[in-house]
Amino acid sequence: MIDAMSAQYRYKIILSYDGTRYAGWQIQPRSKTIQGEIEQAILTLSGERVRVHASGRTDRGVHAKAQVAHFDLKKKVPIQQFKGGLNALLEFDIRITLLSTISPDFHARFDAKTKEYRYQIWNDETVPPFVKRYRNHVRKHLDAEAMNQAAKLLMGKKDFASFSANPNCEVDGTVRHLSKLAVKKHGCEIVISAVGNGFLYKMVRSLAGFLICVGMGEQFSQDAKDLLRSKTRTAQVPTAPPEGLFLWKVGY
Amino acid sequence: MIDAMSAQYRYKIILSYDGTRYAGWQIQPRSKTIQGEIEQAILTLSGERVRVHASGRTDRGVHAKAQVAHFDLKKKVPIQQFKGGLNALLEFDIRITLLSTISPDFHARFDAKTKEYRYQIWNDETVPPFVKRYRNHVRKHLDAEAMNQAAKLLMGKKDFASFSANPNCEVDGTVRHLSKLAVKKHGCEIVISAVGNGFLYKMVRSLAGFLICVGMGEQFSQDAKDLLRSKTRTAQVPTAPPEGLFLWKVGY
Repeated sequence: MIDAMSAQYRYKIILSYDGTRYAGWQIQPRSKTIQGEIEQAILTLSGERVRVHASGRTDRGVHAKAQVAHFDLKKKVPIQQFKGGLNALLEFDIRITLLSTISPDFHARFDAKTKEYRYQIWNDETVPPFVKRYRNHVRKHLDAEAMNQAAKLLMGKKDFASFSANPNCEVDGTVRHLSKLAVKKHGCEIVISAVGNGFLYKMVRSLAGFLICVGMGEQFSQDAKDLLRSKTRTAQVPTAPPEGLFLWKVGY
Repeated sequence: MIDAMSAQYRYKIILSYDGTRYAGWQIQPRSKTIQGEIEQAILTLSGERVRVHASGRTDRGVHAKAQVAHFDLKKKVPIQQFKGGLNALLEFDIRITLLSTISPDFHARFDAKTKEYRYQIWNDETVPPFVKRYRNHVRKHLDAEAMNQAAKLLMGKKDFASFSANPNCEVDGTVRHLSKLAVKKHGCEIVISAVGNGFLYKMVRSLAGFLICVGMGEQFSQDAKDLLRSKTRTAQVPTAPPEGLFLWKVGY
């Protein structure tokens, strides 16, 4: 689809970011966003005003270990230099870890087959300063085994309406296939891993919020089934805070 | 030594801090310091203006995984509540991980037998945002094996004058016993561990600065011996930046 008049080159980026200081992925006026910072850096470097499309939005305060995105430029740029230039312009908390040219057919959002999220909890009286920005701090003892039992009941192809923060606005319905939901404990750290073909609005933080209640003994694994059946968002499913959440990997 | 008139209780604390936002350990006017923040928190909580004595100062921007300190209070305080209160008053980047009463003979500085420091380097084109505050970023490839060979030549009881940032001001002379100096690489991460009975001013960062030069092939392990013999600080020994340095452990 490249002709002399409207030549377009498509570029794919993989990026890591600390979401603490940003109002999420999506560009918006008067707020610092990941998308806004990257589009500005590309504009400064190439002179071209582009739209950067990510595999999906991340909310305010959510982190990404390996977000994937694409954008088009009229000109062909030297890859290594352009990547170095973007990282030099961006602040340290957004890093482009890979830049490559890619077929103009590739679309970071529509072509994403699976996504993995990880939700990280620090379960102790105090959190080491060095990881504080990246953990949900839960003081009360959590029973990780009970959490994992409940997680198993939430796996599979199911209607997750009760785990969406806004089930009535989900344009593609509320059924998703959660191929993995597992809870592991190492020392004071509890990690919830979720892999699926797509996620509803704040679904991972809702799953984490429910699992934390199970870990505290306030709810039980069997409640998971009733919740799924009810297809209604209730106070039984709190939304866990954003700082524990990482978009970990996108599969194509 | 406790009588009814001037009863004093001595308390020991172990603390972790992210030094990024602080002008080092030592209290000073118009600067935010670790000591200053802790003394203020103790004053707020107990009403007593105390001096907190650490095992040693850390410089601006240097971190501590487990610094040890002590202070005296006229009153006996409930340990768990007081610790919780201090952590509630302090910002997240200073955490008291242990508070206990201790014999009035104990002195955090004079009784320290050994100290372990770790200097952490990220040796790759980009540093993940999540560890950036805690790593010295070195883009050029480092030969960790060569660094470790040079480190071995610096171990033992030696005159480290050429590795002090201010050898003429060292009141206890410049001979120290470095019982361990080792360099290990795991992936992009290179960690220099140093254990000794005491360290000169900016000695660990000077050792790290020299070892990084060796890793780049700009100096050679044999230069270590000449440097020690010279007993003079030269440009061959740059001071590596503070963000890679952690006071890791104090032994009593």
